[in-house]
Amino acid sequence: MESKTLELIDLIKSRRSVRNFIYQKIDNETIKEILECGRWAPSGQNSQPWKVCIVAHPTVKRMIAEQSEYGGIIESAYVNLIIFLDLDRSYDRTKDLQAMGAFIQNILLGIHAKGLGGVWIGEILKNKEKINEIFKLPTEKYELMCIITFGIIDEAMEGKSKKERERRTIDEFIDWY
Amino acid sequence: MESKTLELIDLIKSRRSVRNFIYQKIDNETIKEILECGRWAPSGQNSQPWKVCIVAHPTVKRMIAEQSEYGGIIESAYVNLIIFLDLDRSYDRTKDLQAMGAFIQNILLGIHAKGLGGVWIGEILKNKEKINEIFKLPTEKYELMCIITFGIIDEAMEGKSKKERERRTIDEFIDWY
Repeated sequence: MESKTLELIDLIKSRRSVRNFIYQKIDNETIKEILECGRWAPSGQNSQPWKVCIVAHPTVKRMIAEQSEYGGIIESAYVNLIIFLDLDRSYDRTKDLQAMGAFIQNILLGIHAKGLGGVWIGEILKNKEKINEIFKLPTEKYELMCIITFGIIDEAMEGKSKKERERRTIDEFIDWY
Repeated sequence: MESKTLELIDLIKSRRSVRNFIYQKIDNETIKEILECGRWAPSGQNSQPWKVCIVAHPTVKRMIAEQSEYGGIIESAYVNLIIFLDLDRSYDRTKDLQAMGAFIQNILLGIHAKGLGGVWIGEILKNKEKINEIFKLPTEKYELMCIITFGIIDEAMEGKSKKERERRTIDEFIDWY
C-alpha cells in the first residue's frame, strides 16, 4: 500500500501544465483511455454531468483557437478536449462544478500518466457562447467549462520555459481539531 | 508508461464511496500525506483557494454529525475533513469550484491509494452556516464545500452493502471532430 501511495503522490506532484507540443498523431485508443479516467469521476447523485467534444481536426481547432489568447497553444497540440457541463444533468450548481473539477483532474492525471502533456485552459470561458456556436450546441443545454489541450511534450522547449511549481504548504491551509 | 496508466486507471476505477468504518486511529502522518495529494491540485491563476479543518475529536465530530442525515457515518469514521472555499483567494466562482473539485478528487484518490475508505458528503451544504459556526469561521471568508469522511474500511459490512458502481460509457458523452 505504501508504495502505491508514493506512486500516486509522485504522479500528482510531477504533473504540471505543458504548453509546448510536438505535432504528431495521438491514436484514438490513447485518447479513449484518458477519457476513461474522467468517466469514473464522482459526482453528486452520480449525475455525471459532463460532455466532451474531442477535436483533432485542424479547421475546427483553428476556429477554437481564434477565441483564445492561447490560440497558438491550442493549435499546436494534436488534441483539444472541449469540456461542457450538461445542464440537463445538472442538479445543484455548486456540486455540479465540483464534479466537473473532479472529472477534469482525472483527465489531467490520465494525460500525465500516459507520458503526454496537457494544460487546463479556463481563459476561453470569456468567449464561451462562441464555442457553443462552433459545435452548434445550445447554451441552454451545454455550458463550456474549460478546454484541455494535450499532446506529445516538446521536451526541449519545455525545458527552457520550465519554472518551479509553487504551492502553499499544507500547514498554511489546515487546522487540526 | 503503459503500466503506469493502467495503474492509475485501476486506482481511479476501483475507488468507491465507503460508508462503513472500523473506529481505529489513523496517524497524523497518513492524514498529512493524503492532504499532500490535495495540495498539488491545479487551480486557476494558481489561487489554491482551499482551507481544511481536520476533525478527529469526538465532541467536534458529534457537533458536525448533528447537521447531517449521514451523521452516523460521520461519527463512525476516525477522520472528517471539513473542506472550505477560502473566499479571500477566490477570483472566479466557476473556476474556483472546479479547482475545489480537483482538490477533493486528489484527496479521494489519496485515501484510496492508502488502502483506506472515504465518502464525499455534499448533503451537509444544506446546513453550511451551522458548520461555519462550529469552527467560528465567518461565512464572508469561508464557504463550506463538502465533508470527506474517511477511515479504515469495515470490509465485512462494506461487502454486504456493496453495489456495482455505474457510469455511462464514454461513447455516451463524447463526440469526435
